[in-house]
Order: sequence, then structure tokens, then C-alpha cells
Amino acid sequence: MPEYAIGLDLGGTNLRAAAIDRAGQVLDRRATAANPAAGREAMLGHMVNAVSELRDSCGAAGLAGIGIGVPGFILLKEGIIRNSNNLACLEDFPIRAEIERRLGARVILENDANAAALGEKWMGAGRGVDDLVLLTLGTGIGGGIISGGRVLQGYLGMAGELGHTTVVPDGNPCGCGNRGCLEKHASATAIAAMASMLHLGEGLSAREVYDLAMSGNEKASQIFLAMGQALGVALATLVNTFNFPLYLLSGGVLAAWDLFAPPMLEEVRRRSFTFRTTDTRIEKATLGSEAGLFGAACLPWVEVKLKADS
Amino acid sequence: MPEYAIGLDLGGTNLRAAAIDRAGQVLDRRATAANPAAGREAMLGHMVNAVSELRDSCGAAGLAGIGIGVPGFILLKEGIIRNSNNLACLEDFPIRAEIERRLGARVILENDANAAALGEKWMGAGRGVDDLVLLTLGTGIGGGIISGGRVLQGYLGMAGELGHTTVVPDGNPCGCGNRGCLEKHASATAIAAMASMLHLGEGLSAREVYDLAMSGNEKASQIFLAMGQALGVALATLVNTFNFPLYLLSGGVLAAWDLFAPPMLEEVRRRSFTFRTTDTRIEKATLGSEAGLFGAACLPWVEVKLKADS
Repeated sequence: MPEYAIGLDLGGTNLRAAAIDRAGQVLDRRATAANPAAGREAMLGHMVNAVSELRDSCGAAGLAGIGIGVPGFILLKEGIIRNSNNLACLEDFPIRAEIERRLGARVILENDANAAALGEKWMGAGRGVDDLVLLTLGTGIGGGIISGGRVLQGYLGMAGELGHTTVVPDGNPCGCGNRGCLEKHASATAIAAMASMLHLGEGLSAREVYDLAMSGNEKASQIFLAMGQALGVALATLVNTFNFPLYLLSGGVLAAWDLFAPPMLEEVRRRSFTFRTTDTRIEKATLGSEAGLFGAACLPWVEVKLKADS
Repeated sequence: MPEYAIGLDLGGTNLRAAAIDRAGQVLDRRATAANPAAGREAMLGHMVNAVSELRDSCGAAGLAGIGIGVPGFILLKEGIIRNSNNLACLEDFPIRAEIERRLGARVILENDANAAALGEKWMGAGRGVDDLVLLTLGTGIGGGIISGGRVLQGYLGMAGELGHTTVVPDGNPCGCGNRGCLEKHASATAIAAMASMLHLGEGLSAREVYDLAMSGNEKASQIFLAMGQALGVALATLVNTFNFPLYLLSGGVLAAWDLFAPPMLEEVRRRSFTFRTTDTRIEKATLGSEAGLFGAACLPWVEVKLKADS
């Protein structure tokens, strides 16, 4: 029986878990609705059940560890979700300790975007690259930074909040208190909001704005131009800051790559001497929504390696 | 005889070198004008002489290594200065190999702001802190990032170009090709340029603008307000990106701290959830112009430690 780890990707909508071996083969998986409205106890039960079933299915002896990716600000040392828009019911509760108690096994928590970055590094577009940044373009924008093969966590585990990079100093207000955050100018939500502001139609989704742009609608095209430029401003700063070889984009908005990538790359070229004069790559991530699951499963192995190195 | 290292801090104006022991005691030092106009051969001669004299004075047996901090984009692996506004005569030349050849000793090159950050970590405001960012506010703005106790260099050694963070997307044009770079809105040069734009007086220095502000001149005060806000935008993004415990500011502009720090900190508070809700510190560096010298001297020991760890 191969050694494997269990990764759990917890979102506001879905809870997915997989047993994955060291070669990246998925041995077994579970998926269920996350349903935060059912409350903390129900969510904990679902998480513990999913892991238990996979452990039973794959054999407890081969289990290297359990990693869990969750959205929000996480206090890593304490194993607590400090703030999560989608999972408020799990905030300020010793979630890691409680899951460890119920499973009788060690659990590693990580922010979901960080986990996705690690997943792309392990089995996706970042294979063989030890230093990369991932931006997840969804309803919000998350960030994950891999430095020297491991997640850059910051002293409290709050690093990589790249969706809150200021790209327009007096731009759209954000729930974080800032104005002009990247995620208010380049997420799916931002695309829909711009469509509404430009009177393109009421309640259009980002996907519908994309379809309009593809059918030649000028206003819709302008939205992806603006969105690409906003991404370019943020990416130029990331390139200038990190000088990493690779920056990846993932998330549902990636479907509009052909519309936003040209102005985005043009903006980065204009704004970053480093980008213009090196072979720095800005590319699509390849694991899609699987990245978080792979990254979560990868966490126990990264930790084992860190301990061996230290 | 104590073990010591020689640090050399090469600028556009001054060349300074010091022999420093492991406890941070300066054993001996040399200083001379850098005079880039005299050309490459003269500059190389000055550098080699300064190091040779210190080695003779302190004894070759105790020398742990030689570190050199230089301004500009450096290709670390190749040991070449790719681009330096102040030291164009040293560009695209195997400077490290040539100095090693003349001295018969191993030399480590580093960007000057990176070296300064390392110096502050070793003997300055960052003592005991393994993760910090330093912004050097002078005629330009440089950045140095210390992550896990070592300089974050990026894959080509070009990381930390924080002076080229976009803080005003359609702001002042910069030599790097961008508009609205931090250093075009918050350096000494930017302060002087704003004074000229506001017709405060022709050819005023940043210091003179400061004196005007201190004497109650409203326009001059507005300049430090704008400059503090620009710094705040960049710092908020750094805090959101790294979640490091400490961000340091150094350089001549630090003299105006009382004028620019309040609006700067207010801006960071407003723009960074992480800053508002944690004990993240933004403070003055303490080594002044010595930071680069200490950091350069520190380079051989950091390298020895890295080799021991790997």
C-alpha cells in the first residue's frame, strides 16, 4: 500500500477531500455541499466524516498526514480561523485542535489560496519551480506565495493577501476598509459591478459580460481591458518585489484570458523593468479547482521535509 | 585575533570599507570618494586598495570573507552589475571575478539596499527579527527584503525593487518606464520636484522644503502629506503581501519623519486590514548610512550559515 496524504478543501459552497499518494495519484475522493448555514457542528461533522471515510478506504497505516485549506485569515500557530467571509461560523474557534481530537491525528491548516499555490507547485503549472506567486481570480482575489518551495506565511499566517493590493488609490471601496483593492477591479464580482455601472444590463454575471465582449460589445470589451490593466499594475509590483520566475493566474475568470491577458501583459511590460528585460513568466495555472485539494494534501509532506531540513 | 569580515559599500559618491568582527565591532575602516567619472579602472583600484589595507591592518588569517554592496540591478550568479544609474562605468563587466582575481579572495556582491536591510537585521533596528522589509528613502528609493534571516534575492538577484511599486497609476513618469513609481512620489528628489511644481521656489532641496514646512508653510506641509500617503500606499501593499512583523525606513528623508509618518501610518491603517488588526511595526532604521557597510560585512557569514544549513 502506497503512502498517501489526505487533503481537504473547504469553501463556502463545497467541501472536497481526496487521498493522494506521493506521486500525485488520487486514490479516492469525497465531495459534499459545505452549507455553512447549517452551523459549525454540522460542518465539523462533514469534515471529520470525509477524512475518516478516506482513511478507512485507503488504510490508516499509509496515512502521512492531513492538510486542510480554508478561506480567510488564519492564525497558523493557534490553528484558528480569525476571519472568513464565507465561513463565519468557524471563526475564532480552535478548529484545528477540535478536528485533531476527533480524528486522533495531526492536522495542518492553511489558507486556501496558499494551498492552491502549493498544489500548482507540486502537480500543476509550477512543477519544478520553487518560487512562484499564484493569484486566484474568482468572486474575490486570493494570493499564494511559494518561496524556496514552501508557503510564505508571514509571522501570523496572513501573508499573500494580494487581492487587497491597492491598484487605484481612489478606486472602488472594499470590505477590508481600503479603496481600489485589486479584487474590486479585477475579480468576477468586479466585472459584474462594472457591467452594472456601465448599464450593460442588470444582474449580468461575469460570464455573461464575457459573452457580450466576445460578440463585439464595445463596453463589455472595455471592462476586460480595465480589468487586465488593474491586474497588470498588481503583477508589475509583484514582479518588481519578488523577481520570481513564475506568476500564475487561476480561477473562473481565467476563461476570459484572451480578453484580459493582452492588456495585462502590456501593462506589466510598461511598468516593470524586470519583466521587460528578463524571461519572467506570467501564465495560466493548470489544476483548476483541484489545486487547493492537491496543495492541502501536500502540506504534511512539506512539513516533514522542513523538519528534516532543520 | 578575532575573526572578522570586510564590508565595502560602494555608492555614486562615496566608497567606504570596514573590517567588522562577529560581534559587530568595527576593527578598522577606510573611506574615499567614489568618483565614477574617473572610470572603471580607477574605481576598481580604489576598491581593491581599501580591502587590501584593511586585510593588512587586521591580519589575513582572521578574514572570513569580503562582501560588497553596490547600487543597481545585479546579476548575482554572474557577479555582474547589469544596470546602475550611478555607476554606469561598472556595468556589464565581470566585476566580482576581477576583484576576486586581484585580491586572491572570494567576494560576495549584493545590491546596496539588500545589504542595508541585512545590516539593520544584524546590528540595527531589526536585531532578532528574521523577516523584515527596509525602504531606503534617498534621491531614489531602494528596497531590501529579509525573509527567514536572509536576503530575498529573486531568481536573478533583482528582487526588492520597491521604489518602482506603482502608487499612482497615472502618476509621475519614471526612468524605469513606469508612471507613478513610489520613488517619483516619496524620495528626496520627488519632494524637490513637488516643491518646484508648486512654485515654492526654484532649485529647493528636500531639506529646504522641510525647513519651510517646519516654519509653517502650507504648501510645503502638503508635500510631506502627499509623500507620506504615497509611502502608505506602498507599505500597505507590503504588509498585505508579506505579513512580516517589521518594516523599516532609512535614508536622508527620515529627518522629516515627524511630518510624513503620521499621514503615512494613517494611510497604512486605512488600507491594510492586517496592519489595523495586528502588532505589525513600521519604524525608523537605526544604523543610518552604516547599514550598508554592516550588511556587506555580514554577507560572508550569512553564506557560511547557508552552506552549513544545506
